[in-house]
Amino acid sequence: MTDDVAPLERAIQGALAAGPLDEEAIRAASSRLDALTKPPGSLGRLEALAIQLAGISGDVGATYRRRAIVVAAADHGVVHQGVSAYPSDVTSQMVANFLAGGAAINVLADLVGAAVTVIDAGVAGPIPPVPATRARFVRAPIRSGTDDMTVGPAMTRDDALRSIAIGLGVVADLARDGIELIGIGEMGIGNTTAASAVTAAMTGLAPERVTGRGTGIDDPTYAHKVDVIERALALRRPDPADPVGVLAGVGGFEMGVLMGVLLAATGARIPLILDGFITGAAALLAAALAPGIEIRCIASHRSVEPGHAVVLERLGLRPLLELDLRLGEGTGAALAMSLVDAAIAIRDGMATFDSAGVAGPAGPVAVVDTRDRVP
Amino acid sequence: MTDDVAPLERAIQGALAAGPLDEEAIRAASSRLDALTKPPGSLGRLEALAIQLAGISGDVGATYRRRAIVVAAADHGVVHQGVSAYPSDVTSQMVANFLAGGAAINVLADLVGAAVTVIDAGVAGPIPPVPATRARFVRAPIRSGTDDMTVGPAMTRDDALRSIAIGLGVVADLARDGIELIGIGEMGIGNTTAASAVTAAMTGLAPERVTGRGTGIDDPTYAHKVDVIERALALRRPDPADPVGVLAGVGGFEMGVLMGVLLAATGARIPLILDGFITGAAALLAAALAPGIEIRCIASHRSVEPGHAVVLERLGLRPLLELDLRLGEGTGAALAMSLVDAAIAIRDGMATFDSAGVAGPAGPVAVVDTRDRVP
Repeated sequence: MTDDVAPLERAIQGALAAGPLDEEAIRAASSRLDALTKPPGSLGRLEALAIQLAGISGDVGATYRRRAIVVAAADHGVVHQGVSAYPSDVTSQMVANFLAGGAAINVLADLVGAAVTVIDAGVAGPIPPVPATRARFVRAPIRSGTDDMTVGPAMTRDDALRSIAIGLGVVADLARDGIELIGIGEMGIGNTTAASAVTAAMTGLAPERVTGRGTGIDDPTYAHKVDVIERALALRRPDPADPVGVLAGVGGFEMGVLMGVLLAATGARIPLILDGFITGAAALLAAALAPGIEIRCIASHRSVEPGHAVVLERLGLRPLLELDLRLGEGTGAALAMSLVDAAIAIRDGMATFDSAGVAGPAGPVAVVDTRDRVP
Repeated sequence: MTDDVAPLERAIQGALAAGPLDEEAIRAASSRLDALTKPPGSLGRLEALAIQLAGISGDVGATYRRRAIVVAAADHGVVHQGVSAYPSDVTSQMVANFLAGGAAINVLADLVGAAVTVIDAGVAGPIPPVPATRARFVRAPIRSGTDDMTVGPAMTRDDALRSIAIGLGVVADLARDGIELIGIGEMGIGNTTAASAVTAAMTGLAPERVTGRGTGIDDPTYAHKVDVIERALALRRPDPADPVGVLAGVGGFEMGVLMGVLLAATGARIPLILDGFITGAAALLAAALAPGIEIRCIASHRSVEPGHAVVLERLGLRPLLELDLRLGEGTGAALAMSLVDAAIAIRDGMATFDSAGVAGPAGPVAVVDTRDRVP
């Protein structure tokens, strides 16, 4: 047991040691942006993004072109309660699709030059063979999916720690490869049910406030889904002061992996882009273990899952995109990478007032800076 | 006079003839998207964008890689009233910066592979020479900026028609070059004052509801700006039933050019991406001339100018991005082009359920389609 806890404890210490954002890098990035031929702050959140990235990495010149999308996949025993429109088989089939390069995340990751790493953290069915593999595959199934949280805990505490450790290892590998930017995503039939349970447990909000329709369920199935979550919470009584216990009680293996990725990326000062509701729930858990990780996270989008808005608000994150996405896989994170490219291109590609011979304001410009305050 | 009106009348007829979106292309795009390995509609507004583009162009296979950003520049006599933080000289200096490739729009257009066309529709100062030109330049100054709208009409009705004709000509050239997607932008110190006056005139709303801080003015200058607009409207009494009269009374040459671009792009069934407040005000004027053009427009973002939200609401357009931009130049339109790329990559690059061997829903999927209804 002590052996299992040690890697997590080290990761938490590493994340806490990252501390606040690099003030010097923030100042340097800000003054660079203010010298460019545009009214100060007039590119709004694009400038805020360039500044936040500098603050996270401490590097004012990084381009974040070496980038990865990490997709954690696992199945959920709670699916036996009939909470999803799709059968569990779809999880393993979609993992095969990720490996073959046919899924949305493959297409969007290609578009922004991100390498996809797929992690089998506990997929139920066998993964169908694919003719040619187009993604890095980490085969680390803890079990064939979690147990049904309405029957017993989703997983043991040891398995929860193991899932987190997988994420830590993945980031260690990516950092060794020189990856400068990580987007996270997930796949797992039933995982919006688990994410809603986690969010309700961590926030104290009623399940119906944080439960949505996932891949698309009808009204009776939705009511049933809320009921299932209420029952699971009543039985498991997860304690928000014990995030690993919440993960074990009502979470999922993919969420554990993502927690590990979040903690390790924070420690390594690698900016991390969140995707949708499940990645947000994982961030809520990770932030409870290591407060402050959220300032090193970029919220890519706000999905249609009502729990996602709650999670982002708790984390104090404003999403860059509002595209009504509800797919997951890291698709929103990949889309946000094109905004990272835009922010960096602005920082590096524009002329300055001096170099272009453009006059500044006639008088003092009022402070109407529309850039978000960097946390 | 009849000669001047004839091109506009033809453009209006052409825009009206475009009619509703192509239903067959919309159906074909929708069923293509629904065959892909994702829950139907789960990529939300990205799917809506792919569908809208098909409906506009009538072409289900177009990639919209042949794309242009049209930046119309002109000066504004109302600047003599002290409504801007920047001197008029900045307009000509920024035109030179566009030509030299050092402005934000050059950087963002490069990123999405769009060619920049800059139009001098009436810049006051001489355009400083640039060592090497990185943009197409249409030199068509109507006058050295508009007249001060608090003293007389901003321009004559003939000049208003001339400015629109310039935009018509630019699109004719772009269409001949095979351009499949047009983003519009503008530059002109003082032009948020004109756009606010146009928006107030067209909507009947009080100037203070639709007036913002432009490039960044302080409280007294803001109050003065509202007062200037109120005086101009009281003097000019622009009639919303006569959009060309509104343009002449309180508009700007760049807005006239953009109206021409909007009308001609609609007629040519080329999807058009709006940028910020000034392009929105031009769309409001163009839509009053040819109702229906708005369904062929894509709203890239919502800026911090309060009038922009009003304009988008009147046009019935929901912006793709909310990045607190307030620069103009077409920067938001260029950013939205990366979402067009994402939408098209999804449409063309993903596996289908059949090809990937992924199971569909276990039962019927409820209708929770999060794609916007295409107008």
